[in-house]
Amino acid sequence: MEPEKSSSGSRGKPIRCRAAVSRKPGEPLVMEEIIVAPPMPHEVRIRIICTSLCHSDIIFWKMKDFPGIFPRILGHEAIGIVESVGEDVNEVTEGDTVIPTFMSQCGECADCRSTKSNLCTKLPFKVSPFMPRYETSRFTDLNGEVLYHFLFVSSFTEYTVVDIAHVTKIDPAVTPSRACLLGCGISTGVGAAWRTANVEEGSTVAIFGLGSIGLAVAEGARLCGATRIIGVDVNQQKFEIGKKFGLTDFVDPANCENKSVSQVIIEMTGGGADYCFECVGLASLVQEAYACCRKGWGKTVVLGVDKPASLVSLPSQEILHGGKNLMGSLFGGLKPKSDIPLLLNRYMDKELQLDEFVTHEVRFEDINKAFDLLIEGQCLRCVISMCNE
Amino acid sequence: MEPEKSSSGSRGKPIRCRAAVSRKPGEPLVMEEIIVAPPMPHEVRIRIICTSLCHSDIIFWKMKDFPGIFPRILGHEAIGIVESVGEDVNEVTEGDTVIPTFMSQCGECADCRSTKSNLCTKLPFKVSPFMPRYETSRFTDLNGEVLYHFLFVSSFTEYTVVDIAHVTKIDPAVTPSRACLLGCGISTGVGAAWRTANVEEGSTVAIFGLGSIGLAVAEGARLCGATRIIGVDVNQQKFEIGKKFGLTDFVDPANCENKSVSQVIIEMTGGGADYCFECVGLASLVQEAYACCRKGWGKTVVLGVDKPASLVSLPSQEILHGGKNLMGSLFGGLKPKSDIPLLLNRYMDKELQLDEFVTHEVRFEDINKAFDLLIEGQCLRCVISMCNE
Repeated sequence: MEPEKSSSGSRGKPIRCRAAVSRKPGEPLVMEEIIVAPPMPHEVRIRIICTSLCHSDIIFWKMKDFPGIFPRILGHEAIGIVESVGEDVNEVTEGDTVIPTFMSQCGECADCRSTKSNLCTKLPFKVSPFMPRYETSRFTDLNGEVLYHFLFVSSFTEYTVVDIAHVTKIDPAVTPSRACLLGCGISTGVGAAWRTANVEEGSTVAIFGLGSIGLAVAEGARLCGATRIIGVDVNQQKFEIGKKFGLTDFVDPANCENKSVSQVIIEMTGGGADYCFECVGLASLVQEAYACCRKGWGKTVVLGVDKPASLVSLPSQEILHGGKNLMGSLFGGLKPKSDIPLLLNRYMDKELQLDEFVTHEVRFEDINKAFDLLIEGQCLRCVISMCNE
Repeated sequence: MEPEKSSSGSRGKPIRCRAAVSRKPGEPLVMEEIIVAPPMPHEVRIRIICTSLCHSDIIFWKMKDFPGIFPRILGHEAIGIVESVGEDVNEVTEGDTVIPTFMSQCGECADCRSTKSNLCTKLPFKVSPFMPRYETSRFTDLNGEVLYHFLFVSSFTEYTVVDIAHVTKIDPAVTPSRACLLGCGISTGVGAAWRTANVEEGSTVAIFGLGSIGLAVAEGARLCGATRIIGVDVNQQKFEIGKKFGLTDFVDPANCENKSVSQVIIEMTGGGADYCFECVGLASLVQEAYACCRKGWGKTVVLGVDKPASLVSLPSQEILHGGKNLMGSLFGGLKPKSDIPLLLNRYMDKELQLDEFVTHEVRFEDINKAFDLLIEGQCLRCVISMCNE
C-alpha cells in the first residue's frame, strides 16, 4: 500500500511527508521524504505547524558519539495539530492544537501527583533515540532505514509521533510561532525563576549566560517582581537585548579587572544576589554563581547542560557556613501539561513576553539557515514554519 | 587591687576563679586559677553552672595550627547565671539564667530580621580567639598572660564573658544539665531536621553519622513526624541507641557487600530518601548523601565540619537532572534567642528528648575524663558540673 500524502483519511496509515534529516554529525540537514508510522497505543501523530531551534539541537547535531546517533530527526520546540491518535488516548483528539515536550507528565506517578517534583517517574527523562514507551522508532526513510527520534519530540518533520504523556493540549487561539517557544527554552528559563527558585518580589537576581534561556530567566524574574536583575555575559550587546526582559545591570567577565565575577557581584549587591542562575553549562560557572549568592538564604539554580563527566566542586565549609541552596532545574521545574497553559495565558494577557524572543523566521526548506543564525550568536529564537497547509 | 573570689559584690571588678585551660594541643587541660575581666559594653559576665563537651572542642583542642591557638579556654555548650552586665545591656540582668551560643542574633541586621536566615551579619560566625565586638580577650592567667576565647563562649571556666548578641535568656526552671545541651550539638541536629530541611510528616530520612548530632537529627525528624529514619554508621551499636530517637533502620557501610551506601538506601526506599543529613564532616559522604536523596524533591543537608580545604564534588548532570536540593545548616538553621526557648518548651512538655543524650556526668575537676569518654565513643554527651555554689 502506498503511504498517504497527509490527508484527513490518513488515520491508521503511514504518512509520507517531508523531513529535515540529520544524517551525519555537523553536516547540513537533508530535506527528504520519509514515512511516519501511525501512532501506537498511548501515542499521538502530530502535524507540525512550526518549530524553533534550541541549542540542544545543535549540541546533538554535532555529537559524534552516543547519545549522538544518526540518521536522526532533531527538533524539540514545536507546536502542531493532532492528526490521529493511537489506542487508549482520550486526552486529545484529531484537530487539537498541542505542544509536544521532552518532559513527560503521566499524571499518575508519585512525582506527577506531588507539587514538589516535575520529574515524571513513569516515563523519566532520558536522551533516547526511540519512543519512550516501546523503545522503537516511528520514522523510516524511503529505503526503509530507521530514522532515530530526538528527546521524544523530533519536530523537524511535517509529521511526528509523540507519546501522550509528552503532549500538552493548548488553546488554538495562540499564535503558533510564539506558542512553540514554550516547548523548551523559554519555559525552562521562566520556570526556573518562577517555579524552581520562586523569586521573591524586590529581590536581586544574577544570571550567568544571556542566551535565550538566560534572558527567559530575566523575563521570569521580572514577572516575579525582582527589582535588580544582573546579567553576566562575554557579549556586551546582550545588555541592550536583556533590558527588554528586565535586565538592570551587566557584568562582562573581561571587564572585572583583577576580580572574579563573584567578587564583583558581591560588591555590587552588598553581599551577593538572592538568586543566581547558571545558564551556560559550565561547572566552573556554577561555582562562581554559588560563590556570589547571598549567605543566609541565597539560591543557586543550575539550568545549563555541561558535559556528562563534569563535576561541580564546592568548598565544604562554604556549604556548611553559607546557609545557601543549590538546586537543579530541568524544564524550569514546570510540569508541562499543568504549567504551559498557565504561561500561555500570561502571554495572551500581555504579561509574559514571547514576541521579543523571536528574532528570525525561516521556511522549513531553509532550516539549515536557522542553524547558521543560532551558531553565529545573533539569534535568540529562529522559528521554522512548515507552511504545509 | 586583689580580684574578688566571685561574689555579689564582684560587679565591675575582675573575678578570680577556676578554669580548665588548654595549654598545649592534645594535652590534658590544666585546672588553674585565672582572672576574668568585667564585661565591656554589650557584654555579659556569666557564672557557668554546667557545660557539656562537644566534638568541636576536641577538634580545636588537638589543632596544632591556627585557628588552633593556645593557651585557650575551650567549651561552648553551657548554661549559666548572669553575674554582671556591661554598659548598654538591657536584655538580661544579674541573676538571669542564660545559654551562651557560638551563633549570634543581634536582632537588627537584615539576616536577623529575615525569617530565611540565621546567619547574623552584624556579628558573623567565625573561629576567633577573641570577643566578637572588640577583638580582645577577657581572660588572663595569674602571670598576666592572655588566655584565648573559643567560639565566643569559652565555658570551661567558672566565669566567662560573652557578647549579649550571643546570649539567650531562658526559663530558670529547666534542669541546667539538660538545658546546656541546646547550646550547640542537639540544637544543631534537631534544628537541621526542623528548620533547615523542614521534614514533612510521613517522609523518609537518612542520617550519615550517628554521633550526638546525627541522633539529634533523628530526634528532630521523629518530632516532625518522619515515618522512616535510616541511620548510617560504622558502629552497629548505634542502632540500639538510635531507636530511642526514632531510628527505624540501620545501614553499616561494612555490610553493603559490593554496593555503595547510596545504592543500598535507594533500594531500601524505592528511589531514595526524602531528606539526607551528613553529620560526619566528610565531603565524600556529602556526595553519597546527595546521591541517595530522592530525585524530584530530595534535600541533602550538610551539618558536618570537614577540613577547610575539602571540596564536595557533585556530577553536573546529576544536579541538573535530579531536581535535588543541597543545603548547609549552621546551628540547624536556628536563631538562638528565638528558637532555643521554643526547644526548651518542647522539652518541658515532654516532646523533645534531652535526658537520653546525657550518658555521663563529671565534676569540673574531672573534665579531662569527659575528653577521654567522648574520644572512646561510648559517650553521647558528658555534662561537666561546676558545683561552684
